[in-house]
Amino acid sequence: MTRRSAVPPPVTAVLDASSRWLPARLGEVEDRLRAAIVDHGDPLGEDAATTLAAGGKRLRPMLVLLCAGEGGDADRAVRAATAIELVHMATLVHDDVLDEAPLRRGHPTVAATSGRRRAVATGDLLLSRAFAMLADAGDARSVALLAEASVALARGELAQRHDAFDLGVSEERYLARCRLKTATLFECACLLGHDDEHLREFGAEVGLAFQLLDDVLDVTGPPERTGKARGTDLLDGTITLPLIEAARVDRGILEVDLHGLDTDSAVQLCDRIAATGALETVRTRALEMVASGKRQLESAGFEVEQRQLLALVADGVVQRYS
Amino acid sequence: MTRRSAVPPPVTAVLDASSRWLPARLGEVEDRLRAAIVDHGDPLGEDAATTLAAGGKRLRPMLVLLCAGEGGDADRAVRAATAIELVHMATLVHDDVLDEAPLRRGHPTVAATSGRRRAVATGDLLLSRAFAMLADAGDARSVALLAEASVALARGELAQRHDAFDLGVSEERYLARCRLKTATLFECACLLGHDDEHLREFGAEVGLAFQLLDDVLDVTGPPERTGKARGTDLLDGTITLPLIEAARVDRGILEVDLHGLDTDSAVQLCDRIAATGALETVRTRALEMVASGKRQLESAGFEVEQRQLLALVADGVVQRYS
Repeated sequence: MTRRSAVPPPVTAVLDASSRWLPARLGEVEDRLRAAIVDHGDPLGEDAATTLAAGGKRLRPMLVLLCAGEGGDADRAVRAATAIELVHMATLVHDDVLDEAPLRRGHPTVAATSGRRRAVATGDLLLSRAFAMLADAGDARSVALLAEASVALARGELAQRHDAFDLGVSEERYLARCRLKTATLFECACLLGHDDEHLREFGAEVGLAFQLLDDVLDVTGPPERTGKARGTDLLDGTITLPLIEAARVDRGILEVDLHGLDTDSAVQLCDRIAATGALETVRTRALEMVASGKRQLESAGFEVEQRQLLALVADGVVQRYS
Repeated sequence: MTRRSAVPPPVTAVLDASSRWLPARLGEVEDRLRAAIVDHGDPLGEDAATTLAAGGKRLRPMLVLLCAGEGGDADRAVRAATAIELVHMATLVHDDVLDEAPLRRGHPTVAATSGRRRAVATGDLLLSRAFAMLADAGDARSVALLAEASVALARGELAQRHDAFDLGVSEERYLARCRLKTATLFECACLLGHDDEHLREFGAEVGLAFQLLDDVLDVTGPPERTGKARGTDLLDGTITLPLIEAARVDRGILEVDLHGLDTDSAVQLCDRIAATGALETVRTRALEMVASGKRQLESAGFEVEQRQLLALVADGVVQRYS
C-alpha cells in the first residue's frame, strides 16, 4: 500500500489536453509546496525537501484544480491543491518511520532513532502547514474537509495495522480500509475544488480504483517501474484484494504463514496469486469503479471540457504502471 | 524534554479557587477528549485511550478556559481547550515512536514495527481531530492559531534533533528551541481563550518557565515523582539550560562524550551539574519569567479574580515536582 513514483504517464495526457491553463497552475502548486517546505528560514526541512524533490504524480492537486475549473478562483484552488498534497506528503514521510532500525548494544542507534523522530516531526510539520495554509485564508469549510480526510487517513492506517497478517480479512473490510486510507483524500480533493456531492462519489470511486491498481502493481511489479520489490505488501502483512481474490480460487493460499515470508518467497507468492487470474478480476473491478465514477461526472453539471479532463485523470488512474 | 505526570499539585490550588465553575468546565473537556478518542465506532483508538487514561495536568486546557473566563462563551472555550490538549497528546504519542525496537534477523520485529506505525497514526489521528473540532465550529481564527502552534512544535522537535549531542549549543539556541517546542502552545492556549496580545507574552513566559523547570527536574528527579530516570535528556542528547549553565562554571563538562553515556554515568553527570549551582540559576530564571508573565496580565484588562487564577497557574508551573 505504498505509493511513490517519478514517472507520471496519466499526467501527460491531461496536461496535453489542458495546456492552456493547467500546467501553469500546477507550477504554482509546486512553488507553494517549495515555499511551505524549504523557505522557512532554517535548514530543518531536509526530509521534507527530499520528499518534494522526489516528485510524484500530483494527482490530488490536479483533481482540486480540475474540479475548480479554469474559470474558478485560481488562488483558492492553488492553495487547496497545495494543502492536500502536503497532507499526502506527510503520509509518505510518516511511512518512512517503518524503516529499518539497526541496534547497538540492544538499543537503536542514534542515527536510526534520530531519523525516526525526524521523520515523525517532518510529517507533523507538513500536516500542520497544510492546515495553516487553509486557515490563513479563513477557509473553515476547506479546513473541515481536509481535517476529516486526515482523520480518515490515520484511521485507515490504524485499520491496516490492526488487520495485518490476518488472512481472514474480508473484501468488505479491505474496501472499508481503502476508503479510509486512500479514497477519502481523493474525495476531499474533488470537494475542495468544487462543492457538489456527485464529486464526492466520483472521487471515492477513482480513489478506490487507484488503490486497487496499486495493490495489483505490488504483485506484478516490475520493481524498476513501481520503485519497490514485488510482494512488499505481503511482507508487510497487508492483505489486499488480489490476495483475497486469489484465495477464492486457490484455497491453499490461506495456509501460507505471512510472518515467515522473506523477499524470495514473497515473490513466489506473487506468482501464485497471478496464476489464479485474480489480477484480471481486480483490474476489471478497478475499471468498473472508474466507469461508475465517470457516470457521476455527468450529473455534476460541468462543461464538456472539464468533464473530459476529469475523465482522463480517472482513466489514468488505472492505466498507470507506477 | 519529556513531560508526563499523574500528580497535578498546581492544579489543586487553581481548582480550589475556582470551584464555582472551572472544575465543571474541565470535566466537559475530559468528556470531549474521550468522545474524540474512544467513541468513533471501532476499537482503533487504543493507544490514544491509554494516553488519555494516563491523565496529565491539563495545564493548556486550563489556560484556555481561564483566559476565556467564567462569563465567556463556554462551548467555544471547551472546544478550544479540548483541541489544544489533543495536539499536546499527539506530541506525547509521537514521542513514543522513540521506544526501543527489538530486532530479529537484523530486522525490526513486527511488534516493534507495528507499534511504531500505530503510534505515528494515532498521533496523526489526534492532531487531525483537533483541527476537525475547531473547523467544524467554523472557527478559522482558532484553526490558524492552532496550526501555527502545531507547526512550531514540529519545528522545535526538528531543532532538537538537529542540535542533539552538540555541546556547543548556545543559550539563545536553547531558548529558541523551547519557544518552538513548548512556549508556543502555551501562547496559543491563552490566545484561543481570549484575543489579547498581552496574553501571548504571558503564555510565552509561562511556557518557557515550564520548560526550564522540566529540564531542572530531569536533572534532580526523583524518578518516582517525575516518572522518568534522572538524566533522560542527557541520554537523548538533548542539551538543556542546566547543562549550559553548569558548563559555565565547570568547563570540563564540555569534554564529556554524551554518546558514551549510560544510565549510571548519566546520573553522575546530573550530580556534577547540580554541584555547580546551575539548578538554582535556572530555577531563578524560571521564576523571573513567571514574574514577567504575571506583569503582562496586569495590562490584559482582566477582572481581579481572573488575573489571580491565571497567576496561580503561572506560579504552579515552577512549583511542581512532576
